[in-house]
Amino acid sequence: MQDKINVTVWNEFVHEKKDEAVRKIYPNGIHTAIADFLGKDGRFSVRTATLDQEENGLPESILEKTDVLVWWGHMAHEKLADEVALRVKRRVLEGMGLIVLHSAHFSKPFKLLMGTNCSLKWREADEKARLWVIEPGHPIAAGLGEYFELPGEEMYGERFDIPQPDTTVFITWFEGGNVFRSGCCWDRGNGRVFYFQPGHETYPTYYEPNVRKVITNAVAWAAPRVNIKDDCPNAKVPLEPIQKRDLSAYRAIANKG
Amino acid sequence: MQDKINVTVWNEFVHEKKDEAVRKIYPNGIHTAIADFLGKDGRFSVRTATLDQEENGLPESILEKTDVLVWWGHMAHEKLADEVALRVKRRVLEGMGLIVLHSAHFSKPFKLLMGTNCSLKWREADEKARLWVIEPGHPIAAGLGEYFELPGEEMYGERFDIPQPDTTVFITWFEGGNVFRSGCCWDRGNGRVFYFQPGHETYPTYYEPNVRKVITNAVAWAAPRVNIKDDCPNAKVPLEPIQKRDLSAYRAIANKG
Amino acid sequence: MQDKINVTVWNEFVHEKKDEAVRKIYPNGIHTAIADFLGKDGRFSVRTATLDQEENGLPESILEKTDVLVWWGHMAHEKLADEVALRVKRRVLEGMGLIVLHSAHFSKPFKLLMGTNCSLKWREADEKARLWVIEPGHPIAAGLGEYFELPGEEMYGERFDIPQPDTTVFITWFEGGNVFRSGCCWDRGNGRVFYFQPGHETYPTYYEPNVRKVITNAVAWAAPRVNIKDDCPNAKVPLEPIQKRDLSAYRAIANKG
Amino acid sequence: MQDKINVTVWNEFVHEKKDEAVRKIYPNGIHTAIADFLGKDGRFSVRTATLDQEENGLPESILEKTDVLVWWGHMAHEKLADEVALRVKRRVLEGMGLIVLHSAHFSKPFKLLMGTNCSLKWREADEKARLWVIEPGHPIAAGLGEYFELPGEEMYGERFDIPQPDTTVFITWFEGGNVFRSGCCWDRGNGRVFYFQPGHETYPTYYEPNVRKVITNAVAWAAPRVNIKDDCPNAKVPLEPIQKRDLSAYRAIANKG
Repeated sequence: MQDKINVTVWNEFVHEKKDEAVRKIYPNGIHTAIADFLGKDGRFSVRTATLDQEENGLPESILEKTDVLVWWGHMAHEKLADEVALRVKRRVLEGMGLIVLHSAHFSKPFKLLMGTNCSLKWREADEKARLWVIEPGHPIAAGLGEYFELPGEEMYGERFDIPQPDTTVFITWFEGGNVFRSGCCWDRGNGRVFYFQPGHETYPTYYEPNVRKVITNAVAWAAPRVNIKDDCPNAKVPLEPIQKRDLSAYRAIANKG
Repeated sequence: MQDKINVTVWNEFVHEKKDEAVRKIYPNGIHTAIADFLGKDGRFSVRTATLDQEENGLPESILEKTDVLVWWGHMAHEKLADEVALRVKRRVLEGMGLIVLHSAHFSKPFKLLMGTNCSLKWREADEKARLWVIEPGHPIAAGLGEYFELPGEEMYGERFDIPQPDTTVFITWFEGGNVFRSGCCWDRGNGRVFYFQPGHETYPTYYEPNVRKVITNAVAWAAPRVNIKDDCPNAKVPLEPIQKRDLSAYRAIANKG
Repeated sequence: MQDKINVTVWNEFVHEKKDEAVRKIYPNGIHTAIADFLGKDGRFSVRTATLDQEENGLPESILEKTDVLVWWGHMAHEKLADEVALRVKRRVLEGMGLIVLHSAHFSKPFKLLMGTNCSLKWREADEKARLWVIEPGHPIAAGLGEYFELPGEEMYGERFDIPQPDTTVFITWFEGGNVFRSGCCWDRGNGRVFYFQPGHETYPTYYEPNVRKVITNAVAWAAPRVNIKDDCPNAKVPLEPIQKRDLSAYRAIANKG
Repeated sequence: MQDKINVTVWNEFVHEKKDEAVRKIYPNGIHTAIADFLGKDGRFSVRTATLDQEENGLPESILEKTDVLVWWGHMAHEKLADEVALRVKRRVLEGMGLIVLHSAHFSKPFKLLMGTNCSLKWREADEKARLWVIEPGHPIAAGLGEYFELPGEEMYGERFDIPQPDTTVFITWFEGGNVFRSGCCWDRGNGRVFYFQPGHETYPTYYEPNVRKVITNAVAWAAPRVNIKDDCPNAKVPLEPIQKRDLSAYRAIANKG
C-alpha cells in the first residue's frame, strides 16, 4: 500500500470570526470545510493550520512533512511572517505542492513564487460564473463535464498579472462581461503550483461538488515526485578532460576592444 | 525619427577594483566596456550605474527613464538595497527590459522576478564553451551562425533552477562535459527578461564580437512596448447586466456539506 | 530606408460571389477589404490571391517573395490543392509569417502547422463579443484598450483543440455564455503564426477599427527574421576529438538483456 | 486493482533482417527487446506490431485498445500507409500516449503531430553521450541521477526543428561538440507525446538500464486520462440569453470602410 499524501490546509481564519454571514457558511472556518472533504477521499492524510498559531501554524517541522499545502487568505496577507512565506516558497522549490485559492492570489507565498504583481480586476455582485474546461485531458479536470457553473461568485477578471501558466485548465465566463484564467498550473523548482479562482468567503463555494472535485484532483496532481534541497555546487572535477590552453592571445582582445 | 532606447548598464564594480587580473581586462569596469559597444550601435542612449553610488546608482528618477537595464554582479549581490531590488522588479513588471549577465543569475532582481533559487553547477577551469543557436529565427540570434565559441569561460551547468523559459535561444556545450541553457527569455508583467550566461570577470568576454552582438540584439529586443503601473481595480460597474437572483438555496448547501 | 514587408492576402472568395448579403458587405471580396487597409499602413507592399487562380493563386514564385501571408477560408477548404497547402507550411517553417483568420482555423495550412484537429464550438446568433487583452505588452495588442467589443459575431467557443499557444493575446467573452482564446501566437520552425477569431462573412468585421489594428499589428509582428531552407545534415566531422573506444563490452549487454 | 495499461510497441523491423551487426544486438527485433522489459514492469500489458503486418500492424481494432504506442522507425518511414499515420495521429488527439524513439523523429505520425520538419544534425562516430536531467521533478526522470551516460551513440544535434516542448526533460552533451534536447514532452489534443533521442540500431541502447527506466517512466506518464472523439459542434442553443439587436448601423460601416 502506498503511503498517504500529507496535506496541510492553511487559512488565515479571520473573516469567519468577525463576520456573522461568513461564520454561517463556514462555522469552523474555510480550512475545516476543505479539510473535511479532502479527508474523505482516502488518499490524503489531512491537517489544518491557521495564521494565529505559533509560527503561523507552519513551523519547519510541519512543512517538512507536508506534501501538499492548500492556502486561503484575504485580509491578513501582510500578517504572515516573511520568514514563513519564504519557508513555504523554499519547500515548493524542493518539491512540495501548493494549491492557491481565490484571494490568495495576493498571498506572500504565491507572489514570491510568481515574481509578478498577481493583480486583477474584481467585483462583488452576486454574479454567475461558468468555468470552461480548456484541457479536458488534464488530471485536474478529471470527472468534470465541458463546463460547470457557480450561481454566485466574486468576479475576478483579466488582465491577471501572472507569468504565462504552464497549463491553463479553466477559463471563466462571468455574467458581468469579464473573463478569467481561473485554473492555472506552474512548475516551480521541483514543485507544482495550482491557482484556482473560486471561493469568496460569502459564498458556499467549498461545498460545491465540482469545486471539491477540482481541489481534490489538484491535491493529487501536486503531490511531490522528489524532495531536493537547494544547492549550487562547485563541480570542480570536470567529467571530461579539459585541454590546457594559452588564453593570452584571447585576453589581448581587451586592449583592442 | 524614433527616439533612442535609454539603456542603463549596472555593475557592482568590485572585482575590477580589487583584483589586478580583472582590472587589466576591464580597467574602467565591466559596465564601461559594455556601455562602450552599446553606445556605438546608434539606437541606444547609454548611461552606467554602480553599487557604490547613492541608492546604488538606481534612484527612482533614473529607473523611470530607463528602457532597458543591463545587470552584472557577483560577489556583492547582498549589498544591493532590498528597496532598489524591488524597484527594479517593479519597473520590469511595468514594461522595462532587463538583461541579466553571467553571475547575476544570483542577483536580487533576477531572483525576485524568477521566484526560484536560480542555482546551477559551476567550475573555473579555463574550458572551451560552444553556444548553439536553438532558435535561429529569434531576434536575439540575428547575425549569428549555427554556433559560436568562447576559448575559455567559467562553466555553468544544469540543472539551472529557473522557471521554464518562454524561449531558449542558446544551449552551451562545455568542454568539461556539461550543458547549460545559456540564453533564456521570459515575459514578466509587461516587461521582458533575458539571461545570458557568458561573462566571468577573468575573461575578456565582453569584447568578443558574438557576445557583443547578442547583448546588442537583446537590448533592442527588450525595449519596452508599454509602461503600465500596477493596479488591482474594483470594476464595480459590470459591463453587462447581472440578473438579480436569490442565492439562499445555494447558500444552504453549506448546512449539508 | 527599410524595404517594405511583402504581404499576400489570400481568400477562397466563394461566399462573396454566391451570397448577396455577403457581397453587400464585401463587394470585392474579403481579401480586397483587408488588402485595402493594410495597403494604407505604409509599411506593407500588398497583393491578393484567391482559390480560383492558377495554383490557387500561390505558385512558388509568389510564395517565395511573400513575407507574411494572411488567410481567410471557410466552405472551400478542401478545394485547396494539397501541394499548395504543403508549400505554405514549408514557407512558414522557413521563416514566413502566417495570419489565420476566423474560419480558417480549419484551413489546410493551419491544421498542418498545428498538428491538432483545431475543432471548437460555434453558433451563429448575432451575439456580442468582447475581446479582452491578456498581454497588453505584446506588439499585437499595441494601441488597444483593456478590451474591445464587436456588436455581433459568430460565436467560437472552447474547447479549441490547438497546441497550447506560445502567447495568448486575447480571450473573448461571448454574450451567449462562452469563452474563446481568440488571439493566439505560435512559433513554428523559423516562422510565426497568429490566429485571430473575428471575421464571419456576414458581419463587417474587417472594417472595424480595432480589428484592423490587430491585423495590422500582427502582420508587422509576423514579418520574417530569417529565411532558412530545411536541412538535415550529416555533420560528419566532429567539432571536438572523439576518443577511440572499444564498445564490444557495451554491446555484450545485449546478450544478458 | 487498476487495469493494466495497454502498450503497443511498433517497429519497422527492417535493419534487423538485413544487417548482421544489428541482428546480433536485436535478434528478435528492437520491438521485442523493448516489449520484453516493459512486460516485466507489471503495470503494462504489452503487444508488438510491425510494418510488414496487415495495415502495418495497426488496424483500427488494435489502435482502439492501445493506451500507449511506442514507435521505432528509420529507413522505411515512407512505407507506412498515410492512412495508418493519420489514424495514429487521430488516436493521440483522442487521448492515446505516443513514445517516439530516436530516428522516429522523421516518422510520419510524429511529423504530423509536430507540424514542423523535425530535422536535426547527425553523425555516426561511436561517440559518448551524456544525458543531463533538466527537470528532476518530472515523472519521466524518476529514479535517475543528475545525468547518465551512453558509451557510444549516434549523435543528434541542434538545431532540432520542433515546436518548443512543453517540458524539456533531458539535454544531451555529445563528445564531438554538439548538444541536443533529447527528452521532450508535448500535450497534443488530449494525448501526450514524448520524444527520446537514444537508440541507434547498431548500439545495444535498449538494454541499457537508464534508457529502460526512461522508457518505462514515459509509458506510465503517457497513459491516457480521457478518450474523446473529435467534434466541432454547433452549440445552437446559447447558455445565456442573447439580446435582439439591430446590426444595420454596424453593417453600414462597410460602406465607409
